Amino acid sequence: MQEFKSSVTEAEQQDLITQGLSFAEEAMLNVVSSDVIVLNDASKHILEAGGKRVRPRLLILAYLAAGGTDVKHIAKPAAAVELMHTASVVHDDINDHGIVRRGRPSVNAIWGRTFALLTGDFLFTTVYQLMAAYGELNQDLADAATGLVEGETLQAWAVKNSEFTSENYMRIIALKTAALFKAAGMMGAKLANAREDVVEALGNYAYNVGLAFQIIDDILDIIGDEATLGKTSGIDIEQGRGFASVETDDDTENPDELMDSIKRKLLGGNRLDKARQQAEMLVQIAVSGLDILPDSLAKAELIDLANKVINRDH
Amino acid sequence: MQEFKSSVTEAEQQDLITQGLSFAEEAMLNVVSSDVIVLNDASKHILEAGGKRVRPRLLILAYLAAGGTDVKHIAKPAAAVELMHTASVVHDDINDHGIVRRGRPSVNAIWGRTFALLTGDFLFTTVYQLMAAYGELNQDLADAATGLVEGETLQAWAVKNSEFTSENYMRIIALKTAALFKAAGMMGAKLANAREDVVEALGNYAYNVGLAFQIIDDILDIIGDEATLGKTSGIDIEQGRGFASVETDDDTENPDELMDSIKRKLLGGNRLDKARQQAEMLVQIAVSGLDILPDSLAKAELIDLANKVINRDH
Repeated sequence: MQEFKSSVTEAEQQDLITQGLSFAEEAMLNVVSSDVIVLNDASKHILEAGGKRVRPRLLILAYLAAGGTDVKHIAKPAAAVELMHTASVVHDDINDHGIVRRGRPSVNAIWGRTFALLTGDFLFTTVYQLMAAYGELNQDLADAATGLVEGETLQAWAVKNSEFTSENYMRIIALKTAALFKAAGMMGAKLANAREDVVEALGNYAYNVGLAFQIIDDILDIIGDEATLGKTSGIDIEQGRGFASVETDDDTENPDELMDSIKRKLLGGNRLDKARQQAEMLVQIAVSGLDILPDSLAKAELIDLANKVINRDH
Repeated sequence: MQEFKSSVTEAEQQDLITQGLSFAEEAMLNVVSSDVIVLNDASKHILEAGGKRVRPRLLILAYLAAGGTDVKHIAKPAAAVELMHTASVVHDDINDHGIVRRGRPSVNAIWGRTFALLTGDFLFTTVYQLMAAYGELNQDLADAATGLVEGETLQAWAVKNSEFTSENYMRIIALKTAALFKAAGMMGAKLANAREDVVEALGNYAYNVGLAFQIIDDILDIIGDEATLGKTSGIDIEQGRGFASVETDDDTENPDELMDSIKRKLLGGNRLDKARQQAEMLVQIAVSGLDILPDSLAKAELIDLANKVINRDH
């Protein structure tokens, strides 16, 4: 299983990770440059606010763990997975009336609904721009894009129709979060010209990490406070997401009362503990799937990334 | 200039056009099929309402005029250019509060703002799905996608900031309409493996037709009535688009008064006549650029399409 072991040292791999993220950052800022000032400014506003960059990190680590060494070569796909996520975040803040994102006012809050909608559209188009040259990988990303929008829609539908069952919850997070994680893992491996079983292993790893990531995100939404999270906390709950089925109606319900009632429901039982256990199990499955890979710093970082997903507080 | 002349007869070409449009329709309905019922239903609602299908028609005609014969092979790109347009239409109706589109209630009016936003996003993702296998063509379509969103944004910005000059107007319609027309023309030619000068000629033809199309669209918006046009007429004017620079503020102005005032401004002078003359000139330029192509039914249809753009009443 060592045939694609990377020839670079651990210190060199560490440098490659840092460089890869930096190239991806540069690619993102380049591709959102536009003569249309509103798009340019609003896109840079949301990008420069930072964020965890977990999706490009996943892609870079998968690439290195599968034996790749040229991180400049993968800057555009790494930027693309982050921009697809960013596009959905901007649209999410329109639908949820989110006013804080990554510790800054949301695009919606500064530029208004019309420009936030168009900025989200613009960010989706930058994904096309970045990926136009990457032939086969476009199908992986297309599947992730469709999944993302389907997941967001299923969520809005489940809230509206009081169908927020745990079965629907798993389907929603698989589509809206895990699908893009999976694409990042698979694309990283494919860019390193990895064998099919390696591509599959890294795709499955990333998929399970994505599920765990979203479960923990929802738990943090319940117990977190606005300052720690850097976004309008509780919104996911006010809208009836997470672990409870609840009727909501933006126009008639008092969000605070609704929020209190859901919190009482959630924290009264042992649902949060169960959800956390599920996330931990998913991370275990994810990590064990990496056995197929030779040891490398990138592999260790992938294991570390998975563990951090369940041990983070923001 | 006859080396790529099609070997098929005129009657066969006529059949190929009809078949090509029918394959494109099928490809559109297939790709919007989704387990997420809202997306499936809302997408089919807007697609089944019809529309002029001018973009897929352009692509198919360009393909046939450049010597192509396998219209099944181009169904997906033909569907993609129509779906990109449809996605922008759905988002446009959110921003403009449009309640009628293609003679039916808009997606926004039936499913509400949240689902209309997500349906537009979903339609954008179907473009990725359709184009994933088309390597080089993705760059043409990426440029068109970025242009489309930049044009819509520039328009919203110009309205908001009372910067609706005729210079900005031409820049807006070049981006929001002509860029996608151009991509349709170029892609059709490239799919027929046409020479570079033929690709350029068909791209330029489509670009100029796109400019003329949008100018006429804006004129019809001014003089048309709701029943003829099948969409909420006058919206483009209420929002301050078209040929006048005007301050608007959705929340404080009375749209009817605003509308009247713009109409008085517009119809008092000779601006409409000038705009129509400009559209006619653009169509002349478009048509003369087709001289490079050998005669064919498809070429005649392209000339006809260009002429119909300036002679339509809806």
